[in-house]
Amino acid sequence: MGKNLTSRDEDYSKWYNELVVKSDLAENSGVRGCMVIKPYGYAIWEKMQAQLDKMFKETGHENAYFPIFIPKSYLSKEASHVEGFAKECAVVTHYRLKNAEDGSGIVVDEDAKLEEELIVRPTSETIIWDTYRKWIQSYRDLPILVNQWANVVRWEMRTRLFLRTAEFLWQEGHTAHATKEEAVAEAQQMMHVYAEFAEEFMGMPVIKGTKTESERFAGAVDTYCIEAMMQDGKALQAGTSHFLGQNFAEAFDVKFATKEGGQEYVWATSWGVSTRLMGALVMTHGDDKGLVLPPKLAPIQVVIVPIYKGLEQLEAISEKVMPLVAELKSKGISVKYDDRDTQTPGFKFNEYELKGVPIRLAVGQRDLDAGTYELARRDTLQKESVKATEVVAKVTDLLDEIQVNIYKRALDFRNRHISRADSYEDFKTLIEEKGGFISAHWDGTAETEERIKEETKATIRRIPFDVEMETGKCMVSGKPSAQRVLFARAY
Amino acid sequence: MGKNLTSRDEDYSKWYNELVVKSDLAENSGVRGCMVIKPYGYAIWEKMQAQLDKMFKETGHENAYFPIFIPKSYLSKEASHVEGFAKECAVVTHYRLKNAEDGSGIVVDEDAKLEEELIVRPTSETIIWDTYRKWIQSYRDLPILVNQWANVVRWEMRTRLFLRTAEFLWQEGHTAHATKEEAVAEAQQMMHVYAEFAEEFMGMPVIKGTKTESERFAGAVDTYCIEAMMQDGKALQAGTSHFLGQNFAEAFDVKFATKEGGQEYVWATSWGVSTRLMGALVMTHGDDKGLVLPPKLAPIQVVIVPIYKGLEQLEAISEKVMPLVAELKSKGISVKYDDRDTQTPGFKFNEYELKGVPIRLAVGQRDLDAGTYELARRDTLQKESVKATEVVAKVTDLLDEIQVNIYKRALDFRNRHISRADSYEDFKTLIEEKGGFISAHWDGTAETEERIKEETKATIRRIPFDVEMETGKCMVSGKPSAQRVLFARAY
Repeated sequence: MGKNLTSRDEDYSKWYNELVVKSDLAENSGVRGCMVIKPYGYAIWEKMQAQLDKMFKETGHENAYFPIFIPKSYLSKEASHVEGFAKECAVVTHYRLKNAEDGSGIVVDEDAKLEEELIVRPTSETIIWDTYRKWIQSYRDLPILVNQWANVVRWEMRTRLFLRTAEFLWQEGHTAHATKEEAVAEAQQMMHVYAEFAEEFMGMPVIKGTKTESERFAGAVDTYCIEAMMQDGKALQAGTSHFLGQNFAEAFDVKFATKEGGQEYVWATSWGVSTRLMGALVMTHGDDKGLVLPPKLAPIQVVIVPIYKGLEQLEAISEKVMPLVAELKSKGISVKYDDRDTQTPGFKFNEYELKGVPIRLAVGQRDLDAGTYELARRDTLQKESVKATEVVAKVTDLLDEIQVNIYKRALDFRNRHISRADSYEDFKTLIEEKGGFISAHWDGTAETEERIKEETKATIRRIPFDVEMETGKCMVSGKPSAQRVLFARAY
Repeated sequence: MGKNLTSRDEDYSKWYNELVVKSDLAENSGVRGCMVIKPYGYAIWEKMQAQLDKMFKETGHENAYFPIFIPKSYLSKEASHVEGFAKECAVVTHYRLKNAEDGSGIVVDEDAKLEEELIVRPTSETIIWDTYRKWIQSYRDLPILVNQWANVVRWEMRTRLFLRTAEFLWQEGHTAHATKEEAVAEAQQMMHVYAEFAEEFMGMPVIKGTKTESERFAGAVDTYCIEAMMQDGKALQAGTSHFLGQNFAEAFDVKFATKEGGQEYVWATSWGVSTRLMGALVMTHGDDKGLVLPPKLAPIQVVIVPIYKGLEQLEAISEKVMPLVAELKSKGISVKYDDRDTQTPGFKFNEYELKGVPIRLAVGQRDLDAGTYELARRDTLQKESVKATEVVAKVTDLLDEIQVNIYKRALDFRNRHISRADSYEDFKTLIEEKGGFISAHWDGTAETEERIKEETKATIRRIPFDVEMETGKCMVSGKPSAQRVLFARAY
């Protein structure tokens, strides 16, 4: 299996596409742009969900659920929002099918045309703020700290599994606040939560910052983001948190009675991460043999493969292994004993390397005799012989070590791929030959940003918001620049 | 709050509608037939999900995710399935909106018409079996035991919160097997899992059985069901599990190589429960003061309300209460200390009664002096004074006791509402005057079933499948009957 995987050097994009399918994460469906998330991929997503959900609840949020459909007129209420989201979306126009009169099959029943078309939600600000109008009368009703786990649809023309699909799964937080300060603090808090999740659980270093106006969410005043660096030197936006000002409250007329007796529009945020994180996970750690999963998100943390000839040997091995399985499980470690007799050990080794299982234990007759296991770690591919009496302690420590190691490796790579450019020429050379993030001065205009994008395909990934300012001159226009920003080509 | 609730005797249906909204479970949205599930309602649904998901995994199932859209042609492939589901569904015909040329807003872009319409899934057998064709080649690939948590849409004309909504949340299991026996056993197993969940977690007694042909799922060979009895004497179908035979495998050409080297169609099941269970929960236990939640599903199991005059008293109470909160939490009990100073204790008492919180502890200056709490249980509304030193033990025991008590109460009610009718006249009187389940002989024909439904609005809720047969004569036609079946008017 692993042998048939295109290498990253040969074609990074092809490597990714093949790996997602071969490792049983996801596949394309019969519906254009929509993916099937397979059980192994979904098990990783469930672990992501569980951890994020815990972090959301620890920061005071509750879950709720809002309709999948958005009346067309709702989308129009916030001017820049409709520009951003009305373009490519799935439009429901009818509510019934019927048998064709000529017997040719089923057809849309034209008598069942909706008076107003419904849009399958591309994001839920509009339907949620239409609801919040009913929930919010007074400052006593604030803040509202609500999150939703849901599917959304954006009619993308070019799709790639996880990275860009017509339908994807995500969570979207939507909060309502009495003051601007509180809303800004909430939006920043969620960016930090996302960064903590990416770094501590996915083992993926990220850079925090804000977006330029042109890269901002449609309807936002400020978009906070976390940006990761993939192994091909391209950036990937892994999560965004928006300070929405009073835009949606004004559009949906959501006011509250203040403590002082006045009436004010409510302040808002929204924030989300999606199954796109699955793509980021694959591209951050994967190698030419397959996935490399962080132990904290791996559905199987340890796999045990018996190497045997004949049922008698297998039974002797199983007798030794079963108590180990039980002991590992009792420590909360997810372990699989693969005693299938339909596949060879070599096939299994390849399969679990492909699937990124952090630790593999192999045990044959010689190990039985010597009282040892052969341990292989997925991140470094190193093997060693471990005494059976020490294997539980070793596995426990090693899971932590692998989690740290793959983060460090990704951090080293990312840090090696941050460059500074002081001229546009240097910038072009760097972006073409090295890739990665390039820190450069920019004059703050959309025109210059657009020109750089057209000429180099690089976009501004983030404006730093918590570092010391270094003024300078825009590398393109020579005009004054208040601070360096980070450019990259991006997914 | 509770005071404004219509009583069950006055108008059961109105009581239900009011209660769902007033207790903050759900509300109607701006989209016809689609509900908003509010945080308190969603927290109960999350507890249901977590428990069901655990039970599915313990029986060997994995989760996956399939597309929300189903190409129109897929629906047509299984003949009876299309009859059942193509009628009332949301049809996506276009994939883009644009600005109207006359500046009147956004309109559907007629240039972006889909070649083939997409249906928002009403259920996923077709898209899943189209996928399983790719997953299944040999007996080694079987069984496939997959579940999906998802939203589905059925364009119902008359909707009621939770009981019948255009969009609802559910899980749908879809399994594939090498033999008929294994598939039948799977379908029956899941009916038992549902029954166990309903009885042990929801505290809702159910009757298991199979459906008649006319009540069967569109495309199923056999439908196993669990039926519950509501307090107005109407039955509610709480979960179904279908043995699908080889119908979908034939429709989607899913064959497997047998061990013996032949080629056979795969055997299938599907099974599901939905947010309808929320409606069943409300109607099984609720009373004229509001919800009565089973402790195992209550988001708040214990609420503590301080009764005080002035900040000093509140501080003294809080000092006493905080260690209790911590101790209860450490025992895994979900507890809320409501020290809001914006509401009176009386308001809070009503609110938590309305919301069905199983145990309420109140504590004022007199309790402080006496070293006691006033404990009120929601199911019986009884109050007692409990020594502070014994309150943790008391609460722990009482949560178990309430769980058992509300089940028993519902079971008593259900058992009092099972009657036998030996003539059609008796049957009509019973269904009109007493309601509930009526056990009667039926000749097994769809004609008689339809006549009874038209004349009495009662349908056959289940055919027993694991009891001794009692032959007799159909109460309507006088023809031979192999066994009694259970009739009821139903939701």
